[in-house]
Amino acid sequence: MIQRCDLLITNVHAATMDPSMPGAYGAVEDAALAVTGGRIVWLGPRRELPHSVADTVIDGEGQWLTPGLIDCHTHLVYGGHRASEFARRLGGESYEAVARAGGGILSTVRATRAASAEQLYRLSEPRLRALMSEGATTVEIKSGYGLDLDTELKQLRTARRLARHNPVEIVTSCLAAHALPPEYDGRADAYIDLICDEILPAVAREQLADAVDMFCETIGFSVEQCQRVIDAAGKLDLPVKVHAEQLAHTGATAMAAAAGALSADHIEFISNADVLAMAESGTVAVLLPGAFYTLHETQLPPVDRLREAGVDMALSTDLNPGSCPIASLRLMMNMGCNLFGLTPAEALAGVTRAAARALGLCCSRGVLHAGLRADMVLWPMDTPDQLAYEVGALKPAQIFLGGRDVTAG
Amino acid sequence: MIQRCDLLITNVHAATMDPSMPGAYGAVEDAALAVTGGRIVWLGPRRELPHSVADTVIDGEGQWLTPGLIDCHTHLVYGGHRASEFARRLGGESYEAVARAGGGILSTVRATRAASAEQLYRLSEPRLRALMSEGATTVEIKSGYGLDLDTELKQLRTARRLARHNPVEIVTSCLAAHALPPEYDGRADAYIDLICDEILPAVAREQLADAVDMFCETIGFSVEQCQRVIDAAGKLDLPVKVHAEQLAHTGATAMAAAAGALSADHIEFISNADVLAMAESGTVAVLLPGAFYTLHETQLPPVDRLREAGVDMALSTDLNPGSCPIASLRLMMNMGCNLFGLTPAEALAGVTRAAARALGLCCSRGVLHAGLRADMVLWPMDTPDQLAYEVGALKPAQIFLGGRDVTAG
Ligand SMILES: [Zn+2]
Ligand SMILES: [Zn+2]
Repeated sequence: MIQRCDLLITNVHAATMDPSMPGAYGAVEDAALAVTGGRIVWLGPRRELPHSVADTVIDGEGQWLTPGLIDCHTHLVYGGHRASEFARRLGGESYEAVARAGGGILSTVRATRAASAEQLYRLSEPRLRALMSEGATTVEIKSGYGLDLDTELKQLRTARRLARHNPVEIVTSCLAAHALPPEYDGRADAYIDLICDEILPAVAREQLADAVDMFCETIGFSVEQCQRVIDAAGKLDLPVKVHAEQLAHTGATAMAAAAGALSADHIEFISNADVLAMAESGTVAVLLPGAFYTLHETQLPPVDRLREAGVDMALSTDLNPGSCPIASLRLMMNMGCNLFGLTPAEALAGVTRAAARALGLCCSRGVLHAGLRADMVLWPMDTPDQLAYEVGALKPAQIFLGGRDVTAG
Repeated sequence: MIQRCDLLITNVHAATMDPSMPGAYGAVEDAALAVTGGRIVWLGPRRELPHSVADTVIDGEGQWLTPGLIDCHTHLVYGGHRASEFARRLGGESYEAVARAGGGILSTVRATRAASAEQLYRLSEPRLRALMSEGATTVEIKSGYGLDLDTELKQLRTARRLARHNPVEIVTSCLAAHALPPEYDGRADAYIDLICDEILPAVAREQLADAVDMFCETIGFSVEQCQRVIDAAGKLDLPVKVHAEQLAHTGATAMAAAAGALSADHIEFISNADVLAMAESGTVAVLLPGAFYTLHETQLPPVDRLREAGVDMALSTDLNPGSCPIASLRLMMNMGCNLFGLTPAEALAGVTRAAARALGLCCSRGVLHAGLRADMVLWPMDTPDQLAYEVGALKPAQIFLGGRDVTAG
């Protein structure tokens, strides 16, 4: 029997990241892979490949194929930047002095509100393209620098527009509950009303968000306020994610797990009980070493306990103008190892399989397996350990989105 | 009078890095710059530009022009990689176990000796090009993974060949005194004889090295052994640089300063007296935050004291397969700020003006000034603070090497 397919890649090693396969990478050495209709239809040892006829045949030249990388937590649509604030802090000014001078998240809110949709698009696209150039084929983008209906919509529409004009899959989260807008100063519950009664319903009507996120911290919103956002999301059939326990233990992760959240993100301060609750609910731990690094944090996320409990650990850039102006998922893999003690294989799982789960997309991507999307990267390397080990020089040889070669962007 | 020139750039802001100009960046806002014969012939406020006729006129569109970046300390010509060693360590194996399994610097020596000149070139070029893509126009490359005459020559010839085939200036250092080769086990002084009597003279005959470097550490060579290398370099009229005081205080920096070394590199463990000696001798402090980060070091270089004493601080990647497999000078600027407390302006000086001095090239580059090489980068940014603040998305709009547009490489 002859198998017909659109694309056939042979003479590659595949780091499938399939947990049912042996080894940390689920590696198939000297593999072949067939794609039809944007999906993988066959993957296995080359010698077992059925006789095939393909429109395009690629000789992988012994390189490694991985799933396309997934950045599951970014805030990359924003106006302005905070470089001068960065310089003032390094020049010796305190956080307070910088905040008084108009710095901090509200300076980004002002700049994002002031930017036209066109400006916002032009500022955001280079950030997205930096991620894509390293092999990211799916990128999550949050709102949360609008904090009013119009600007939250403007941010999410910009994210959707980025998806239309770039060969990458974009997933969006509405993070209206990111910070208290200045016009609601002292009236946080009223702002939560606005989110639940107006912003989320409007976002859902326009199908602008794939999930709802919230910043549940001592300096953000309380567990009670976040629970209201979770309930409102539930009524709109939107899954939730939570920025949790980055600065202190607040109960945010327990709330997230109880709500069946897709992910709890940051989680430096979670307890043992939180780890077990995440394991039970299947909530993914999204680790953000770039923010840890930029903020000079010292409390490490409990990687050993998460590993023992079987909680999936994703890694992401958290790309944002304050705590991580770093558009490199590969650097996050390196930092995940160097700062958090992940193994290189866990780092790659963190930007593929676990990141897909953190977005509720594990049935379509994150693993190389027949039936899943053919989002893939071919790397000129000897071992997948190189992906976390080195930064800068190792670049994708080819990037495929749904089986289409999108290497040139 | 009409001025004729090859290239005229107008409507730019220039971060000249000229210390005689006001402000941390020596900025000239709304500037113009004229280039003839590969050199800057005029730079100043646009309104003061003499009437000029140019072969090429570039409208900088209000972007910022900086000196070309200079990476003054790399080991980028090497065979193999150490990704598996990285993975084993993160998997819980001790440094000793990894060394017993054949890891460490000697594994790179084996791989570099085994590589053909052609293989070595092909492995090294992507590392160089990663630096170039971020705006590096001058890159230093050390030998030191040969540790025998033939392989040291092979490394340095590879560096020279990289210069011939890529639009970048390469400066080389012979670092034969990097580690003790296995065939000299227990006979370090005999290996120093080989360096002084054979390797350095051969390197000098072929004009393969612009300087001589050495690894003066408790795990490297002693001050006495390094002094012999310095003396041998002096007879060959080669300037010296020293890997000094990274792991402990050894007296390496005092020796370097007494020898009038161009730079002392790493210097986490230097004393107050060392700082003053460097200030007096004009020896540049080359700070290497990527190695600090990768090795999980905790002893910080004394940036405040270096700053007070007026010692020039350069920043570099230390690009090498063990302690910093990171080919990004922009990330080093970010780490210089986040890990070492440099200001963004000090970070830019560290990869321009101070890096030029660390290579003995401050009379030709590192600053935008009439008479110096027109090695320049045009950046799409609002303020030069962005160069250290953000990583990944901000890329050069144009790169000029000796006035020639080499943006595409
Ligand atoms: Zn975030
Ligand atoms: Zn070095």
